[in-house]
Amino acid sequence: MEISAKPNRICSLLGIKYPVIAGGMVWCSGWRLASAVSHAGGLGLLGAGSMHPDTLEEHILKMKETTSLPWGVNLPLMYPEMDRAIKLLVRHHVNIVFTSAGSPDKYTSLFHDHGIKVVHVVSNTRFACKCQQAGVDAIVAEGVEAGGHNGRDELTTMTLVPQVRKAVDLPVIAAGGIASGQALLAAMALGAEGVQIGTLFALSQESSASQAFKDYCLSLPDTGTLLTLRKLSPTRMARNPLSVQLQEAETHGADAALLQQILGEKASKRGIFEGDLEHGELVVGQIASACGPLRTVAEIMKNLLLEYSQARSRIQSL
Amino acid sequence: MEISAKPNRICSLLGIKYPVIAGGMVWCSGWRLASAVSHAGGLGLLGAGSMHPDTLEEHILKMKETTSLPWGVNLPLMYPEMDRAIKLLVRHHVNIVFTSAGSPDKYTSLFHDHGIKVVHVVSNTRFACKCQQAGVDAIVAEGVEAGGHNGRDELTTMTLVPQVRKAVDLPVIAAGGIASGQALLAAMALGAEGVQIGTLFALSQESSASQAFKDYCLSLPDTGTLLTLRKLSPTRMARNPLSVQLQEAETHGADAALLQQILGEKASKRGIFEGDLEHGELVVGQIASACGPLRTVAEIMKNLLLEYSQARSRIQSL
Repeated sequence: MEISAKPNRICSLLGIKYPVIAGGMVWCSGWRLASAVSHAGGLGLLGAGSMHPDTLEEHILKMKETTSLPWGVNLPLMYPEMDRAIKLLVRHHVNIVFTSAGSPDKYTSLFHDHGIKVVHVVSNTRFACKCQQAGVDAIVAEGVEAGGHNGRDELTTMTLVPQVRKAVDLPVIAAGGIASGQALLAAMALGAEGVQIGTLFALSQESSASQAFKDYCLSLPDTGTLLTLRKLSPTRMARNPLSVQLQEAETHGADAALLQQILGEKASKRGIFEGDLEHGELVVGQIASACGPLRTVAEIMKNLLLEYSQARSRIQSL
Repeated sequence: MEISAKPNRICSLLGIKYPVIAGGMVWCSGWRLASAVSHAGGLGLLGAGSMHPDTLEEHILKMKETTSLPWGVNLPLMYPEMDRAIKLLVRHHVNIVFTSAGSPDKYTSLFHDHGIKVVHVVSNTRFACKCQQAGVDAIVAEGVEAGGHNGRDELTTMTLVPQVRKAVDLPVIAAGGIASGQALLAAMALGAEGVQIGTLFALSQESSASQAFKDYCLSLPDTGTLLTLRKLSPTRMARNPLSVQLQEAETHGADAALLQQILGEKASKRGIFEGDLEHGELVVGQIASACGPLRTVAEIMKNLLLEYSQARSRIQSL
């Protein structure tokens, strides 16, 4: 028996064909990646976190030039020039923003006043409920397997998504560890209505990360990432001399100041963008080891949909 | 179009109706729990880890008395009286053993010589490959959200299961964070052919854990567990004065000896079995917060199957 397909709320909200969002990742998510994802039927996001407002504006203009399909901007709420960034979004009629690393109370109604849809990233149910109160339009529930900055509670995608699903009525986008159609299906089984995929797109042809970073991350074993910097802001990155040194220091009780000193300035730019595999912060998710080979966004999306449909057919009744 | 159902390899291997195994958990998995799970169509396991060989023998005899359905024993390979335990299994014709915390090389062929099927628990793909070489019959791939002893690599169920599935031909049982039919479906989507469920059964009516432990764990928030003891053997437990003290000590660089001193002797017995919520080690998985209310095993199994079938119907094509 064919189930009559209800409209997917994430697709309706964002105006996209497939409920697949590419995370707006520092040093990876420029206009090339975001545009390619939107062209492939998903939602591309610019990663404002690593962009000076002038750079952000260049990328916004490029997006408008290269696609008439929906796309958005990921804006960490600790962005140093928040007011300038918001003015840019408004001036250029960007109408989707993904916010993270801060309270949704502060900016959601301001965005709404300008007709901008707001999706906020959370790592536990308490924040999900706060998002609902603040009036955001959808929630990204991101598990600890995700690359980069992580919640302090270290909930995994498998435990977080169904609990957020139950806690709020808003549509939930699952994130963390999703890099295949099977995982997309798993996320939907857990009650998500869409997925945000980071690592797989960070390691795509169109990502603006350096080739050295992509090659290194695509060759990692399954045990190739670690979560460190718990005393600064917990961050998942690839094992390399820098991250191992950070972990060792943490194990011996290093405080935030010492960790910051070891990390140095502009560590993620050095690692991801400049490809310094030894001294750079190689921000990447735990699923990196399953993301190869290097492909274009179009190939990745095609494969995701094929795997999803195959996995869906394979699922049996018990 | 109805998909013709292929026989499930886990059900065939273990002779069970539903591919649901109850983890053999210290201080929880006595004959009452194991027998109830087998009666409900899953596989019950005795948790030998917390049993003196004499106690193990009593529970084995009780199992033989109360069920003619398949059941097994979980035997950590660091069990202090391994030879006696193995003799017990052989003498009483126990024919399924789940092994963990050690190399599958050492005992698998011995078990096979006695007609005992062996399932080994792993936390990364390297160990999964070792299991296949050692000739085990199936693998449990257990993510870091699981309660109790954990692998050092902290792979989550979402990232671990599909990678183990690809690395070996053996049937894979997913574990860690699974306490609903939705999660069971997610595990199947990731390529598992069965699930091992710990926490949900540890917090059931038939579990031999204390009422105080069950009540406490069932009232935890989603952020109510933590992973600590990384310098001894990484262990997930509920937040309580003991675990918070352990985590603080770890944060300040405590070594294994100091952690052991804080933990004290028989900490898990004190916490789980005796219900000392302050000084006991409350071993439980991250999904505890989604396990309530307290129910019988029969109710839990019925609900799992119902949720699974509802979630399966809900899954749409993209």
